[in-house]
Parts: sequence; structure tokens; C-alpha cells
Amino acid sequence: MADACVFCDIVRGDVAAHTVHESDDVVAFLDRRPLFHGHTLVVPRAHHETLADLPLELIAPLFAFVRRLTTAVIEATASDGALVAQNNIVSQSVPHLHVHVVPRRFKDGLKGFFWPRHPYASDEDAAAVADRIRERLSA
Amino acid sequence: MADACVFCDIVRGDVAAHTVHESDDVVAFLDRRPLFHGHTLVVPRAHHETLADLPLELIAPLFAFVRRLTTAVIEATASDGALVAQNNIVSQSVPHLHVHVVPRRFKDGLKGFFWPRHPYASDEDAAAVADRIRERLSA
Repeated sequence: MADACVFCDIVRGDVAAHTVHESDDVVAFLDRRPLFHGHTLVVPRAHHETLADLPLELIAPLFAFVRRLTTAVIEATASDGALVAQNNIVSQSVPHLHVHVVPRRFKDGLKGFFWPRHPYASDEDAAAVADRIRERLSA
Repeated sequence: MADACVFCDIVRGDVAAHTVHESDDVVAFLDRRPLFHGHTLVVPRAHHETLADLPLELIAPLFAFVRRLTTAVIEATASDGALVAQNNIVSQSVPHLHVHVVPRRFKDGLKGFFWPRHPYASDEDAAAVADRIRERLSA
């Protein structure tokens, strides 16, 4: 547990939240500023900041629950699909790992990735980027 | 494997891609229309459409690799963080489960969730939504 972490406070029960699930490993509660109603956050009970920080043994319990939650959120909100998203460092408002599960409807006004794309200048350019990622994976 | 699935074609090697990783369970390759250079997709080798469709035993191999990839992509692109995102049905351009790992920089022009939020009308309204999700989870 970390001091001054609002998600640790919620896990401890010191801050109120609309909790939808609690297990030994994970807690899930409604986002207070939902993209759409039913937008839920899944957090590990223990304080870990990013996905890279999460102990390997917590990967399966966390994402197995996220998988189960996508269906529950879609059904509970009569939606068509769900976005699963997790910000690391950049755009991460609370430095306690949290996975967003957001119900989506066709024509809900969001365009998935609505951001400008940045094409590679050439196939060689893309190959060089792929090389760098492979190098880091094998480092 | 599914006919007419471009990600199955990539997994089989019938369509070229800048592959950064292959294992018995998952394949990872550069997105052809990157949000930022280094934007990588992770797919299960077998054809499963959504996260809910993914067999439970593939959760750990898939997301353990995503975890490892976030660090590799951040390092390879000298970025500050990473977005992990996965669209189910809505905004899902290819109906073969794929997890986006997108390098992010501070002040890269994206505001995380840049979408309008939809607040709950009241705390009772939020509680009712949480109740419905809990009901679906226990169904």
C-alpha cells in the first residue's frame, strides 16, 4: 500500500467507491468520470505503478478478471462492445496500475483511435523500428 | 485459423509484416498505420475474435508478453510511457483479437482520453449501474 494513493484508499475502504468486484488480487469499481456509464477500473490490490511493474504472477488474475468484466459491462449496459485500455506513465492520472473497461456502442460518437496516424516514411524506416524493438526484447 | 483474416495471414506468413516476436501462442508486429512509430500489435496465433472469446489459458501468455513489450517499445523509441488498448467489436477493425502497444511521450499531443465524459446524474444513478454490473458478474 502506498500513502497518498487514492486507489490504495479505495482498496482499503478508506475512500468510497462503487465497487463491482473484490478478490484477493484485484478490486474493480466505477470510474468517477465515466466516458460512458458502466466505465469500470480494475486495479491490483497491491500498489504497482505500471504494467511493467506488475509481478508476473498477477498478470493472469488481473486480465482473467478483465476478460470476464468485458462481458458483464457489455451486458449490464446493453452495449455492443468494450474498450480495454491501460495508460502507463503518460496520461496515467493515478500512479496505481488501472485497466479501463469502457462499454461502447456503434455510432457512440467515438472513432476508436481518432488520433492522427503517423505513417512510416518507407518500408526501410518501419524495418529499422522493428529491429530496435526486437533488440530490446532480446536485451 | 480463419479464412479472409489478415492477421491469420500474417501469422501464417502469407502476408508480410514487420514482426517483432513470435512464440507458440502469440505473434507481434508493427501496426501498418501507427499512431506513433513503434506502435505494435500483439495477437494470439489462433483466431479468436474478442477478449471474451480468448481461452482462459491464453490470458497469461498474451498479457505477460504485452507487459514485456511495453518496456521494449518504450526503450526502442526513447518514449516516456505506453498505451495498452484493445477494442472489442466496436472500433475493432480486424475481427482477430489484437492488443495495441503504443509508445507515448509527454506533450505528444494526445490527451489520454480526449473524449467527452458522461457524468452520472446522481450517486444513486451510479449505484444502480454498479448493481447491474455485479449482477452480470454473478450470473
